[in-house]
Formats: sequence, structure tokens, C-alpha cells
Amino acid sequence: MKYDKILLTHGSGGQLSRQLIEELILLHLGNPILSRLDDAAQLEPESGRLAFTTDSFVIDPIFFPGGDIGKLAVCGTVNDLAMSGALPKYLSLAFILEEGLPIADLERIVLSIKQTAAEARVQVVTGDIKVVGRGDAHKIFINTAGIGVVPAGVNISSDKLTVGDKLIVSGNLGEHALAVMANRAGIEFNPALLSDVAPLSGLVADMLNVCPQIHALRDPTRGGLASTLNELAKASQVGIVVQEECIPVTEAVLGACELLGFDPLYLANEGKLLTFVAAADADRLLAQMRQHKYGARAQLVGEVIAEPQGLVQLKTAVGGTRILDMPAGEQTPRIC
Amino acid sequence: MKYDKILLTHGSGGQLSRQLIEELILLHLGNPILSRLDDAAQLEPESGRLAFTTDSFVIDPIFFPGGDIGKLAVCGTVNDLAMSGALPKYLSLAFILEEGLPIADLERIVLSIKQTAAEARVQVVTGDIKVVGRGDAHKIFINTAGIGVVPAGVNISSDKLTVGDKLIVSGNLGEHALAVMANRAGIEFNPALLSDVAPLSGLVADMLNVCPQIHALRDPTRGGLASTLNELAKASQVGIVVQEECIPVTEAVLGACELLGFDPLYLANEGKLLTFVAAADADRLLAQMRQHKYGARAQLVGEVIAEPQGLVQLKTAVGGTRILDMPAGEQTPRIC
Repeated sequence: MKYDKILLTHGSGGQLSRQLIEELILLHLGNPILSRLDDAAQLEPESGRLAFTTDSFVIDPIFFPGGDIGKLAVCGTVNDLAMSGALPKYLSLAFILEEGLPIADLERIVLSIKQTAAEARVQVVTGDIKVVGRGDAHKIFINTAGIGVVPAGVNISSDKLTVGDKLIVSGNLGEHALAVMANRAGIEFNPALLSDVAPLSGLVADMLNVCPQIHALRDPTRGGLASTLNELAKASQVGIVVQEECIPVTEAVLGACELLGFDPLYLANEGKLLTFVAAADADRLLAQMRQHKYGARAQLVGEVIAEPQGLVQLKTAVGGTRILDMPAGEQTPRIC
Repeated sequence: MKYDKILLTHGSGGQLSRQLIEELILLHLGNPILSRLDDAAQLEPESGRLAFTTDSFVIDPIFFPGGDIGKLAVCGTVNDLAMSGALPKYLSLAFILEEGLPIADLERIVLSIKQTAAEARVQVVTGDIKVVGRGDAHKIFINTAGIGVVPAGVNISSDKLTVGDKLIVSGNLGEHALAVMANRAGIEFNPALLSDVAPLSGLVADMLNVCPQIHALRDPTRGGLASTLNELAKASQVGIVVQEECIPVTEAVLGACELLGFDPLYLANEGKLLTFVAAADADRLLAQMRQHKYGARAQLVGEVIAEPQGLVQLKTAVGGTRILDMPAGEQTPRIC
């Protein structure tokens, strides 16, 4: 590359834009569809319902223990597709770059996108680059949108929770938000707290294989387990009871939460899911999940009850009950 | 709404996020798919190839003569789909908001998105809102991605230009970039220079109706007509000759270009297209285009030649020839 930092001209649509696209983006992410550089990617017809989702990523810092904004941008959208039961297939990738961003940083992010997309078996097929002046953005923002295909017979939705359903959580909670916040605050833990950011499409495919009739699947990102359960309880007009002592949280996260004043049930995760299934299917599903590296610490943590509708109750280890509300304020800005 | 400005908490995934989504986004853009608020939209199966594209919009100012960032965000993606010959169907919509953005501004933008999406007959089916601190973004950035369906028999691509093809431009060039730059510079023209931002999917549908064998379609956005023609000449390994006196440009734009030192052939358009068709089809296609409000000023402006490959030549009104190169630098930052 002719320059070592991003210039406004890299976003102009002219020669320097083209050089950036060819020598950095296509070099690492090129494939027969993306490399055509047409205004829109042309995709072969799909049989089956499509899933379509989008997320923008504004995380600060852009490199953090366990991942970076590029890995996060792939996983976030792949996981949203997977949570609808879809097999993720195609991603769009749009960068907003701040003038002055080191091109070495951009390349590191693009390589991370390449690696994560390969693991998740999705293809980046279309994209965009915009550059804004110094101070008009913070280093780099990424948007990804994704298309997936929903297998026949799969019918997953937030309003399908049924009284008696069991709630399974795929692994330890709170790691992403804590890793990012601790890093931003300059706090180091020993051993290091790492973000859990990971693509969950493989785990979901395994789960649907043994249990295609899963009722609901969600990834507890912003707002954590508590927000997600509240949304599901409201959408399905049921109550949810969670057993606190069953929720998988590491000692390290509990300690850091105590130190920093956070509740792990409200912290964002980027490589975890929760699922509701009929009680008869729960043990079989749990066993299958534990065979996958991203589900090895899965736990059965709660169940669906009829009343009170829309409320999430936490049964504490000491025998009490408290209501897990939606978070009212901003706990954790720019963690995704 | 409880507040009149965007707070960090509006992006937290908690109660205030939900209020913003329900009382502003769903109020205006709600439909049976979007209003489910699932992690991914579920779309009915489509027969035919799909087109998929994305763009981020960082335009400054966010309101400009003739349009705003919301209208632009719909048109940009709708037009990219239309340029592949696809019928646009679904949009994703992702906002990055700067803390302190007046909610009235956001609502005005959402209403503009609603109106433009209705005209273009696309549905917003999935979305995302992120909020960053003051100074970490500039007011509002929008990303849209879009899915369209390519009709059977349509096969449009940048590498399909054939010697003898005629080049048609759909209308007056240079209006978008000039309107935005003049506004940013505080210059007012009388009559006002308005951006041409418009959704072109209806015009393209009419064109494909009379001429499904169109070879190439492009919207000359960043870098203008000159950049787009250079890309096409390179992709198709042909030469292109353009007759300067045939290119539709208003006196107002020519005057403003002289005043500000711009060349209208390098200025971005957001409601114009260019197309290459076999000579035998050109008159019929041109007549059809002129019947559509967005093609009323269409002109036949050039043709494809064999040599020199990859070069675009401009035959000037006084009988000379000059090479229309790719723009080397940044003429016009943040005009989309």
C-alpha cells in the first residue's frame, strides 16, 4: 500500500479507493462473488425461508482480550442468524473509517474477519468503505448484514415459550462485557479475562440435529441474560423462573463483578446462547450441547411457568426470590 | 418520548432502547416482520437469483436541499439492487447515533425513510441502533443492506459491454454533489440547486420490460460518470467514447461548477443511471425511459469501441478529444 494511514481519499470512489479494496480487502476476503465488485452481489436461488439481520459494531477498544471488532462483527451477525435457526450463508461488510486509522490495524481486523468467517462458513459477498474526517468517528465502525437459510421444519421464535419448557444456557456468562470494560479501564486480571466472542452457528446446527423442535433460541448480548429473558417472557406471555446456583459463571467473573459493581446476569455475552425446549427434550439437547466446544459448560438453569406473565424470577442460592427486571440505565457503553 | 435528545442509554438494550424502538421506529416503520423484533427477520422463500448489497451513509449535512440522510440511505441501496436488474424487496436499517442528537431530527429522518421505502416498494424488515458518546460520531450514520430478486432472463453485469453498444444517461448530472457541497459552504443558488436523490427501481423495471437484454446498468455515485465509465471499460476490456455536447447537465450546474471549480462528470449523482444496450435496442429503450419521471431527460451520449481498451474518451464540443481518467484525489468528502 502506498500510505500507512487511512486518508479521506480512500473513501472517494477513485484510484486510492480501488487500491485499498484490491490490495487489502480482496487480497484477504476475495471470492468469485465479492471480487466482481458489482453494485450488488448476485446469489444463487435458495430453497427455503430466508433469515436476514444486521448489526453495527462500535466497540471501544477495537482490539480487546479474546477478540477484536472484526471477529465481533462476523460473530454478531452469524449468531443473530443462528438464533433464528438459520444456517448463515452470506455477509455484507461495511466499514466507516476515521481518517488517520493505521492501515496495519485495518489489515489485522480484515484478517480476523477472514478467519472468523471461515470458521462460521459464511462468505463476505458485498461491501462498502466510507472515510470520515478526524474526530467524526472513533477509529472504525463496522456494519454487517447477513442472509441465512432456515431448514424445513425449524420454527423458532421468541413467542413460542410454553409452560413447562426448560431453559438451558450454553456456558459461562459475563465474560465479553467484563473483558472489554476491564481493558478499557486499564485493569488486568491474572489469569486474563477473555471475551467469549465466538460464532455459534455450528453449535446451533448440532442442536437442531437432535432437537429440531426447539421453541426459542437467543444470544444474550446487550443487557445480558436478564434483558433477554424479560423480552421472551413478554413476547410469549409467560413467567420464567431461574435457579441462581445453576447459572454458569466463573469465579473470576464473580470476583471481577464484585470489584467493579456489576451483576453478571446483566452483562453482554458474544458467544453464548440460551434455549427453551419441551421438558422431554431437555436432557438430550443438553447432552448434545456439551459435546460442542462452545457448549461444553451448558447448564439447565430454569423453566417456564404460567404466572405471573411477563415476569422473570430468580430463586437465589439462599432460598429467596427476586425479580430480574429489564436494566433501566446504561451499564456498559460501546461493548459491541 | 421521555427525552428530547439521544442518550447513551438509548443504545443499551434496556428499557429506553425498547421505548425508542417502539415509539419511534415501529410507530413509523412497523410491519408484521419488523415488529416481531426477533434477532433475524424471517422471509418467505424467493424463486430466482437474489441480489444483496450494502452501503453506509455518513453525509454531512444530514438535511440538504432535495433530501436527507434517510432518503439517501434508502435510495442508495435500492439503486444498487436495481442496477443489478433486481426488484428490491427488503431492507435492513442500522443507525449509529451520536449522544445528543435531537430526537426530532431522528424522527424526521425515520419519516423520510418511510416515505422513500413506500415509493420504492421495499420493506424495512430488520434493524439495529447503536449510540456512541459525543464526539465519537458525527450526528448520525446509517447503514442499509438490501435484498432483491433478479427476474428470470435478466443478466446484467459490468463486464458485458460489447463493441457497438450505445450508452444512455437517464438525466442531468452533478446535482447531488453540488447541492450538498454548496449547502455545506453556505452558498445559496437562485433557483436552489436540489439533490437528485431518488429511487430508480421503478425506472429500471420499465426499462427491463421493453428491453430485458440490457448489458449493463450503473448509478454514477461517488466519482461520477467518469469513474463509473472507467470501471466498466476496464471490466469489459473495451473502449468508450462519450460526446460531451450530448451529456445532460443544466445551466445552473454548469455555472456552479465554474464558480466552485468542479467538473460535473466527476460529481456524484444519487438519482441517475447509465445503461449500455445493443445499438438496435437503444432508441426503443430511450423512448421508454423518457416516459418515466426519473428518465424524462435521458440522452444517448456515447458508444462502445474496441480500442484503446480500458480507456474512456470525451469528444468535446469544439472537436477535440480528451481522456476521462479515474479521479485521483478526494473531490467531495461525505456527500453520501
